Amino acid sequence: MDLVTGGAGFIGSHLVDALVEQGKEVRVMDNFSSGREEFLAHHEGSGSVEVYRGDLLDQEAVITAMEGIEAVHHLAANPDIRLGTEVTDTDLRQGTVATYNVLEAMRVSEVGRISFASSSAVYGEAGVMPTPEDYGPVMPISLYGASKLASEALITAWAGTFGAQGYIHRFANIVGPRGTHGVIFDFIHKLKRDPARLEVLGDGNQEKSYMSAHDCVKSMLHVIDLGEEGPVLNNLGTGDTCSVSRIAEIVIEESGLEGVSIDYTGGRRGWAGDVPKTYLDVTKLLGTGFEPTAMSEQAVRDTARVLISEIGL
Amino acid sequence: MDLVTGGAGFIGSHLVDALVEQGKEVRVMDNFSSGREEFLAHHEGSGSVEVYRGDLLDQEAVITAMEGIEAVHHLAANPDIRLGTEVTDTDLRQGTVATYNVLEAMRVSEVGRISFASSSAVYGEAGVMPTPEDYGPVMPISLYGASKLASEALITAWAGTFGAQGYIHRFANIVGPRGTHGVIFDFIHKLKRDPARLEVLGDGNQEKSYMSAHDCVKSMLHVIDLGEEGPVLNNLGTGDTCSVSRIAEIVIEESGLEGVSIDYTGGRRGWAGDVPKTYLDVTKLLGTGFEPTAMSEQAVRDTARVLISEIGL
Repeated sequence: MDLVTGGAGFIGSHLVDALVEQGKEVRVMDNFSSGREEFLAHHEGSGSVEVYRGDLLDQEAVITAMEGIEAVHHLAANPDIRLGTEVTDTDLRQGTVATYNVLEAMRVSEVGRISFASSSAVYGEAGVMPTPEDYGPVMPISLYGASKLASEALITAWAGTFGAQGYIHRFANIVGPRGTHGVIFDFIHKLKRDPARLEVLGDGNQEKSYMSAHDCVKSMLHVIDLGEEGPVLNNLGTGDTCSVSRIAEIVIEESGLEGVSIDYTGGRRGWAGDVPKTYLDVTKLLGTGFEPTAMSEQAVRDTARVLISEIGL
Repeated sequence: MDLVTGGAGFIGSHLVDALVEQGKEVRVMDNFSSGREEFLAHHEGSGSVEVYRGDLLDQEAVITAMEGIEAVHHLAANPDIRLGTEVTDTDLRQGTVATYNVLEAMRVSEVGRISFASSSAVYGEAGVMPTPEDYGPVMPISLYGASKLASEALITAWAGTFGAQGYIHRFANIVGPRGTHGVIFDFIHKLKRDPARLEVLGDGNQEKSYMSAHDCVKSMLHVIDLGEEGPVLNNLGTGDTCSVSRIAEIVIEESGLEGVSIDYTGGRRGWAGDVPKTYLDVTKLLGTGFEPTAMSEQAVRDTARVLISEIGL
């Protein structure tokens, strides 16, 4: 049985879908802080998915959740990067300490494999674009990015000290159905409040790699199934980017609203700790034979369409 | 006034000496878990050094210690790398969480500068030797190395989010008077117990960069005094290495003991998480005009001599 932490969340629930599709039995551990029961409702009664309500900061609960588990997919984390500027221990606790608790529970329970949702945020403002996995030095500028790098380091230390097998995935910005945060989600909510005006944080030139949640979880499982040994590190993305101003245009197009004015707050970044440009080099991923089904702009458009129908406009 | 965390410890107390020599007023914060009052005894009555006994895990105490501080030198940490294999939350708490507490106290108290004692352990088993600062991906294999990388990431995140100025120093193995752990210290204690036989963990071919504590603190202050902006990252070392078997020979030579047999336990590493070879590229440091006074072998020999006299053999 596989354990998915944060399995009721946005990306986690897509991963549960993909694992069930592979014929796996899945246990979800989630504290439902941003996860939702409805994201897993379609598995009810199937017998394939077991839901364990618990918090990763409760070490006893994490140890209980490890019973009968062969591999862990650790996706639980604070999903709101901006929050780190206000409540500075959120990412430390829900990121770094939670990952420690997962690894320690694995060690105690002799669970040997972990797949971890890291982030392009570890690169900070990288001096090389597109940014390959061996770029250094990595200097995250957000507290979220710091917690992802800290978690990666715990995984490689567990691998080196206790022999765990770790798969580290540095995600592009992941978008898709069930999204509960992020720029597309924010734009739709803003248009719902005021259909005449869309406020964009920053100058709109921020540019990032986007990947659909569907492609993201497929690529995670693809990388694991290659069976490579030693800490395995991969950028997961599409190999292109989309600007924030383009996302604003796409969301407005998909909304069907007319005459919306786009107002930029100005400045290179959306907020303190926001990286103006991220562009992942995915040569390594594509070299393994994986092909994304949607490039950044298409992933953004598909997401805008489905979130508009989920949220309602 | 400058704050030195871990200022009663091995490297910390040397840094206090160097700061006082520069004419600075210094506050030491130390929980005296491995620090010792005698390491600072020579400053008593000088009026330059104030000692504040407190633990970095006590956030209120750290905030109190920030009063009137302009710059922080954060050296406090668990000094025993091997301990991570037994008590797995030591480095998380005394490394990562302690660094978070220091940074958060700085933010609350509006203290803007931090100099941090990181380690070559962040590189893990690097694929490039000598290893430059821009080597990637960094994959520490010890829990100690993981906590150092996590702390670096917190510092760059604080710089990116709150505008702190950070100096990150990746130390070689630092040796010298007042050493309280490490291979030379261990060898002397072993010879004290059994002057006929020296047990060496591993095959003796482990090879690392050594730097004297004197050169270490001089190079830290040299780098800070350059006044470079943005997160400043430097390897601090001598640009050469010394093997563990050579250290065994040197310690025996300096001990004056005759006919000592050296027994190797075998294997590439001394213990799980031990990196068999570390070799720091210090081109960047030397390029700033800093010159170490002792290369690795000399630093080891000088340390053996002084520790033998401190410990008694």
